Amino acid sequence: MAPSTPRVVVGIDVKKRPWEQLVPLHNRWHPDIPPVADVKEGELVRVEMVDWTGGRVGDNNSAEDIKSLDLTITHYLSGPLRVLDTDGKPAQPGDLLAVEICNLGPLPGDEWGYTGTFDRENGGGFLTDHFPCATKAIWYFEGIYAYSPNIPGVRFPGLTHPGIFGTAPSHDLLNIWNERERKLAETDTGSLKLCEVVHQRPLASLPTPKNCLLGKIKEGSPEWQKMANEAARTIPGRENGGNCDIKNLSRGSKVYLPVFVEGANLSTGDMHFSQGDGEVSFCGAIEMSGFLELKCEIIRGGMKEYLTPMGPTPLHVNPIFEIGPVEPRFSEWLVFEGISVDEAGQQHYLDATVAYKRAVLNAIDYLSGFGYSKEQVYILLSCCPCEGRISGIVDSPNAVATLAIPTAIFDQDIRPKAKKVPKGPKVRRSPDVFRCTYDGKLPVTKNPGGTQI
Amino acid sequence: MAPSTPRVVVGIDVKKRPWEQLVPLHNRWHPDIPPVADVKEGELVRVEMVDWTGGRVGDNNSAEDIKSLDLTITHYLSGPLRVLDTDGKPAQPGDLLAVEICNLGPLPGDEWGYTGTFDRENGGGFLTDHFPCATKAIWYFEGIYAYSPNIPGVRFPGLTHPGIFGTAPSHDLLNIWNERERKLAETDTGSLKLCEVVHQRPLASLPTPKNCLLGKIKEGSPEWQKMANEAARTIPGRENGGNCDIKNLSRGSKVYLPVFVEGANLSTGDMHFSQGDGEVSFCGAIEMSGFLELKCEIIRGGMKEYLTPMGPTPLHVNPIFEIGPVEPRFSEWLVFEGISVDEAGQQHYLDATVAYKRAVLNAIDYLSGFGYSKEQVYILLSCCPCEGRISGIVDSPNAVATLAIPTAIFDQDIRPKAKKVPKGPKVRRSPDVFRCTYDGKLPVTKNPGGTQI
Amino acid sequence: MAPSTPRVVVGIDVKKRPWEQLVPLHNRWHPDIPPVADVKEGELVRVEMVDWTGGRVGDNNSAEDIKSLDLTITHYLSGPLRVLDTDGKPAQPGDLLAVEICNLGPLPGDEWGYTGTFDRENGGGFLTDHFPCATKAIWYFEGIYAYSPNIPGVRFPGLTHPGIFGTAPSHDLLNIWNERERKLAETDTGSLKLCEVVHQRPLASLPTPKNCLLGKIKEGSPEWQKMANEAARTIPGRENGGNCDIKNLSRGSKVYLPVFVEGANLSTGDMHFSQGDGEVSFCGAIEMSGFLELKCEIIRGGMKEYLTPMGPTPLHVNPIFEIGPVEPRFSEWLVFEGISVDEAGQQHYLDATVAYKRAVLNAIDYLSGFGYSKEQVYILLSCCPCEGRISGIVDSPNAVATLAIPTAIFDQDIRPKAKKVPKGPKVRRSPDVFRCTYDGKLPVTKNPGGTQI
Amino acid sequence: MAPSTPRVVVGIDVKKRPWEQLVPLHNRWHPDIPPVADVKEGELVRVEMVDWTGGRVGDNNSAEDIKSLDLTITHYLSGPLRVLDTDGKPAQPGDLLAVEICNLGPLPGDEWGYTGTFDRENGGGFLTDHFPCATKAIWYFEGIYAYSPNIPGVRFPGLTHPGIFGTAPSHDLLNIWNERERKLAETDTGSLKLCEVVHQRPLASLPTPKNCLLGKIKEGSPEWQKMANEAARTIPGRENGGNCDIKNLSRGSKVYLPVFVEGANLSTGDMHFSQGDGEVSFCGAIEMSGFLELKCEIIRGGMKEYLTPMGPTPLHVNPIFEIGPVEPRFSEWLVFEGISVDEAGQQHYLDATVAYKRAVLNAIDYLSGFGYSKEQVYILLSCCPCEGRISGIVDSPNAVATLAIPTAIFDQDIRPKAKKVPKGPKVRRSPDVFRCTYDGKLPVTKNPGGTQI
Repeated sequence: MAPSTPRVVVGIDVKKRPWEQLVPLHNRWHPDIPPVADVKEGELVRVEMVDWTGGRVGDNNSAEDIKSLDLTITHYLSGPLRVLDTDGKPAQPGDLLAVEICNLGPLPGDEWGYTGTFDRENGGGFLTDHFPCATKAIWYFEGIYAYSPNIPGVRFPGLTHPGIFGTAPSHDLLNIWNERERKLAETDTGSLKLCEVVHQRPLASLPTPKNCLLGKIKEGSPEWQKMANEAARTIPGRENGGNCDIKNLSRGSKVYLPVFVEGANLSTGDMHFSQGDGEVSFCGAIEMSGFLELKCEIIRGGMKEYLTPMGPTPLHVNPIFEIGPVEPRFSEWLVFEGISVDEAGQQHYLDATVAYKRAVLNAIDYLSGFGYSKEQVYILLSCCPCEGRISGIVDSPNAVATLAIPTAIFDQDIRPKAKKVPKGPKVRRSPDVFRCTYDGKLPVTKNPGGTQI
Repeated sequence: MAPSTPRVVVGIDVKKRPWEQLVPLHNRWHPDIPPVADVKEGELVRVEMVDWTGGRVGDNNSAEDIKSLDLTITHYLSGPLRVLDTDGKPAQPGDLLAVEICNLGPLPGDEWGYTGTFDRENGGGFLTDHFPCATKAIWYFEGIYAYSPNIPGVRFPGLTHPGIFGTAPSHDLLNIWNERERKLAETDTGSLKLCEVVHQRPLASLPTPKNCLLGKIKEGSPEWQKMANEAARTIPGRENGGNCDIKNLSRGSKVYLPVFVEGANLSTGDMHFSQGDGEVSFCGAIEMSGFLELKCEIIRGGMKEYLTPMGPTPLHVNPIFEIGPVEPRFSEWLVFEGISVDEAGQQHYLDATVAYKRAVLNAIDYLSGFGYSKEQVYILLSCCPCEGRISGIVDSPNAVATLAIPTAIFDQDIRPKAKKVPKGPKVRRSPDVFRCTYDGKLPVTKNPGGTQI
Repeated sequence: MAPSTPRVVVGIDVKKRPWEQLVPLHNRWHPDIPPVADVKEGELVRVEMVDWTGGRVGDNNSAEDIKSLDLTITHYLSGPLRVLDTDGKPAQPGDLLAVEICNLGPLPGDEWGYTGTFDRENGGGFLTDHFPCATKAIWYFEGIYAYSPNIPGVRFPGLTHPGIFGTAPSHDLLNIWNERERKLAETDTGSLKLCEVVHQRPLASLPTPKNCLLGKIKEGSPEWQKMANEAARTIPGRENGGNCDIKNLSRGSKVYLPVFVEGANLSTGDMHFSQGDGEVSFCGAIEMSGFLELKCEIIRGGMKEYLTPMGPTPLHVNPIFEIGPVEPRFSEWLVFEGISVDEAGQQHYLDATVAYKRAVLNAIDYLSGFGYSKEQVYILLSCCPCEGRISGIVDSPNAVATLAIPTAIFDQDIRPKAKKVPKGPKVRRSPDVFRCTYDGKLPVTKNPGGTQI
Repeated sequence: MAPSTPRVVVGIDVKKRPWEQLVPLHNRWHPDIPPVADVKEGELVRVEMVDWTGGRVGDNNSAEDIKSLDLTITHYLSGPLRVLDTDGKPAQPGDLLAVEICNLGPLPGDEWGYTGTFDRENGGGFLTDHFPCATKAIWYFEGIYAYSPNIPGVRFPGLTHPGIFGTAPSHDLLNIWNERERKLAETDTGSLKLCEVVHQRPLASLPTPKNCLLGKIKEGSPEWQKMANEAARTIPGRENGGNCDIKNLSRGSKVYLPVFVEGANLSTGDMHFSQGDGEVSFCGAIEMSGFLELKCEIIRGGMKEYLTPMGPTPLHVNPIFEIGPVEPRFSEWLVFEGISVDEAGQQHYLDATVAYKRAVLNAIDYLSGFGYSKEQVYILLSCCPCEGRISGIVDSPNAVATLAIPTAIFDQDIRPKAKKVPKGPKVRRSPDVFRCTYDGKLPVTKNPGGTQI
């Protein structure tokens, strides 16, 4: 007889707020957040999730909700799931948890998403020195396709994936995280070479009880107090997976996660209808609520067998994964190169981050010649299925990064043409993205060469 | 009537040394290196080239030739080609030169290649702090496939491409290069955050008359003296393209290069039978001699139309390109993640270089469990068609980089398995790569966590 | 504001029988079946459907329900949908109806399917002379993947599609169908060359009131009587699309259908989780209930503009379509050839049907060497994403057909091996498919050569 | 040390005529044609070949050479190669010969090809009743790309392959061929159902001494006399592979051929720069001279192990193959359907040949609306990388065949458009193909529906 339809282990009512959900959510990483469900090896289960902000960004005509978003609330995660083998024995530290992402998608009745850039004073993004304003685009879905009234002339199939997918850290690992990030946060930014380039974004988001949600742990209780002060924020990806924002963790992929606590305590959230490599605008995928159907397998002792630590302790490992078989298929790509020389003309040493920044800037300026505002393109390259590659990383002093854009997502031919100078429809593609004012005082990076030649 | 077979504009005799070739080669970038041939728009021409070292690395059983290689000799380039439109008018500064790579491959009768890692005192590589010794693997070709007696059990189709493909810089651009690189080279390395991680490789390779080859300019002449002291070295990719080492510039791709001097003065060299993203071991592609058939088109005014400068002058641009239609096709990939925490456990800020280093280290240790030495895998990941992605670049403080390896290149199943602990053939895949001693005194980076768990 | 979730124009309650559904179904083609809903250009609508038999084949351990299935009941279709432009004007005869298949899949709570072969006396299949018994395999879904307890060791992602997708015929077209099929059915089968090879299957299924269901037309009414006697059966694909069983009409594809009646009257049904080219076992896809989300566009006058009739009347046209971007992606295929010489050794003239039969038979025997019964493989090749190609159709007297099977769907390496004679796990992969007895008297085709060599 | 460059076992001088080549060619299949070279397992060898007509079709402005071509001369084959294992023992009947096609391409200095349709009185083609005239298009190559001055606006990468690739038949197999084809040729064509549709092409090409070339066997000798009267013609693909015209036997593919005589006696010829599935116009690929680099492996006893005979004797088998990894990669396809109803409106029973004919006719008429003559499109669909699929083969009475055309080969958007009625550039794409008169008296098939609607 047929197995029943995937068992729903976390259900979501999108009309309710994050803290009102029947199965409690959490927005921090901590070993002591109690599991909300047991899951057996081989069982197909369904996890539903709110969008990463828990509904604070609306399907409306303004980016004010992005501008004023309090990042301490994020990300709302579903779980943890405690994983057992078929004999009922939980996953153990040192095991490897293989999770197949069998299916995923938007929640029925909530089929829309948004992409934003944060204000430079509130999180910013990869190019925040160029684009300091908060902006927002709304996306609607037609089955596998997404389109935005804010970026006309573009439509593409989603490479849907959860931005966050991870196991709970052990206390030891949590300590490692907090220490190393605190040390960075306390750095004098003036001494950071990279910060000259990627500018004044927060160096790290340290633990804070503010808006902390810990699942079944009652807010304000002594236990909560203790945990909230040490629970890791969810912004960065880390050894446990977490907010890796890897666009290829999509339908049919299989992720191998290290297990640090008994039961593995798997959590997920931050569903993305689509995202480009890098998620450059930060709130940069097509953010939405969603469901994820998954199946677990425990590889006993697999962490030791398959994941060699690359740091001072056995906990310094990273997940690995296999790519699924139904990713959207493109055959034609226009590719932009960038090298590690910054906008001021300064040479950086094999810095792939700077090189990728240049590649993205090059692409934005190029595409803005086809009828788009630069803000439209910045958002588009953040959420469309573009690929960011580290092409050269040894030819000192220049790292070379490339950004490949599938040409089929546009309703016009965006390739350079000898016969069509000047190019493209100079017609403005409107309406534009929603945009707030930037009220801060940090200087904007211009590209002075852009106006002369 | 059929056009005659591609016109050979630069022919190579592989039995001769680089400076003995009929059409003189060059190994520096300079606006005044005289063109060796005129090429018309639309004409199919064939350019042959020596391997990047001009034959100094041999098909033999030792890595000594890699260890002692003098990098001032490189890279031997074929060209420059002066490009004219059908009316005979040369390309002009400000134009865009569209070059289609119609075909390429090894030179008949010279169908072999090599991959090496340099000694840490002589150039090193991306992981030189882990692998300080010079090593070498030899590759033989069977049509589209390559295999190495030094890395048994692996065979793959090549994504053949020229490592170097670029136009001549103008005097102004040359000055910009020399200034910014000199400034970097003069930096106190102690103040460089990145250098802690990627270690004591040379920061930049500045102009030097030593081994300088300038095409038709007679060595030792006053003109040569002047040019040799300012001509740019060919190691890094720059605004003109150059040594971008982009593996996707393969059969059928189309490159759009900025034109800085009259005639464009296109040069190419450093043919790679295959290379992985990053070319991590530095001498890291399957290096060979080769031929390249190309066709040029001039897009008048296209540099201004299509390439927006991203720096202080109109010259701060980068090439763009389209990917060709016959790249090898893989469907199954095993992917390794890395985050910007270094081997000492130190947190770096959104540093994609560090993150990619971690991903590569993770992959090397993983694959070494399948019967390989780490040196074999380091070389393999440098030259096989693996993909390096910048997956997340905004989730401070961690950049996330991924390295995707096509599983089909192995003769065994390299995926993690629940049933097969311990994994793989513990049998050593031998013979190994050729290896020299490391006689320097710099400390080797260990991964202390690697032995405990 | 977000458009509401796709409007459900035909909803299905899988617990009800086909004739009890709220929106009435139909199982014939006729111009006068009244539309059940109006659909506007550009609107995203959702159509749900029962499986083609309306639930008569069960998730149980026997093939008896396949053996005794009355084919006059099929196929249960959802619709017709009347398509209007944004001004409310219906599609007109001569227009082209472009329908994008935005999404589709199994109905929630009914995530299973079946594949069968019919008894030779009751419909048979492409190889019914070799496999006269009714058989059945059950399939369960795990998100994008399907697996069957009856065919162990195989698992694959579905290329889900509706077997039937078509517009209503006009009265003229209906007459053409009935006439030409009647003429064939009345043929003396002894005079048919092909029938010697594909054996005693019914030549055509002519109109019959038996089990006829005509949507809102009340059964037994005079109108019903008239229509039931002339309404076309749904077995074959025809000018209107219909039961084309084209596996590539999947997510994201766009179908261009001719319009023969006002409103176009689009119907669909027979959802397949997966199917191989040819659907060789006849009940040969993974049959299931399902949903389909679609969007229509009317190309006014497009039938004349884009579809040239290839027959005696302007109605002799065929649909065209574009393939969608998220088909499962395979890179390794094992391919079997067949030529137009039948099992008796008789030469047929450029007969692609005979050639394909040989290719399929070759593949079945080959794969049965890897632990499978031939019945398991017959069913597998009918429903897995294999590709059937007409490779050569001019080299008289032999047509050459090929059948390409993606090797990744097996848990073992199915390629020929020099070192592994004899091949594969001789272990039987069990349990087997469910199987009935064949009680008829027609002779079974043996391959006499198969036992000697 | 590197293996020397592939050993040339058959060299071709394209300035010489077929019978003047240093290594003698052959144009028949016969067990007693003496091998021209020995090849060892694992050895990379190079086989060069003339075009299938041995140079009788020229790069000129007329199709007269196609019209008057004597088909008894064809195909000129290179070989046979006698294959030995590493111990020097030849392949034996019953073995399987695995041949990897490592590389192939046009001969240097002869980089052009042609595609033709034969006159209906001289071989015809798949659509000869519609297109009775001889026509010809010339193709030039630019590396991986082909373009034709006769079909402007089209350019595509080649999926290059040998049309003919096969082992020598044994005497027994030769007898089987001759008997069954003779029997067909003697058939009263009036009794053939298919012939009504595919018209009066020769049913089979029986042995004839006319123009017979048997390698080293001296023409006119008694041995030659005997062999010439029984040697099989090379037109059809058969059990030994032969003229299968399978476009996927390209770079990197691996073919498993049955061995019927000692040494296997492998021959190859008829190189195609590119071909569509079916090669519909008969002289329908881009025909050229070429080279092929291959590597053999003997699977002892593999014919019995892997190839089950599907006919009355153990010799009734077919080759299998694996597809290579560097086929051109397209993502967008426009697909045409055809059903088994012929142009006269007559219903045929599950006839894939008729269905494919309809699909091809539909595509020709469709594309001719974009500025092409029907003859241009007929030739184009014969040689471009289009795919012919058997989509449905069980839904009696209609087989459904599909023809998928990659849209990227055109310089215009060929998809149907709602906004662009009437479609395409009505501008004629000229010049056209070269065309002869048809001087025969057979009636031409019109599509009467084509002019009315």
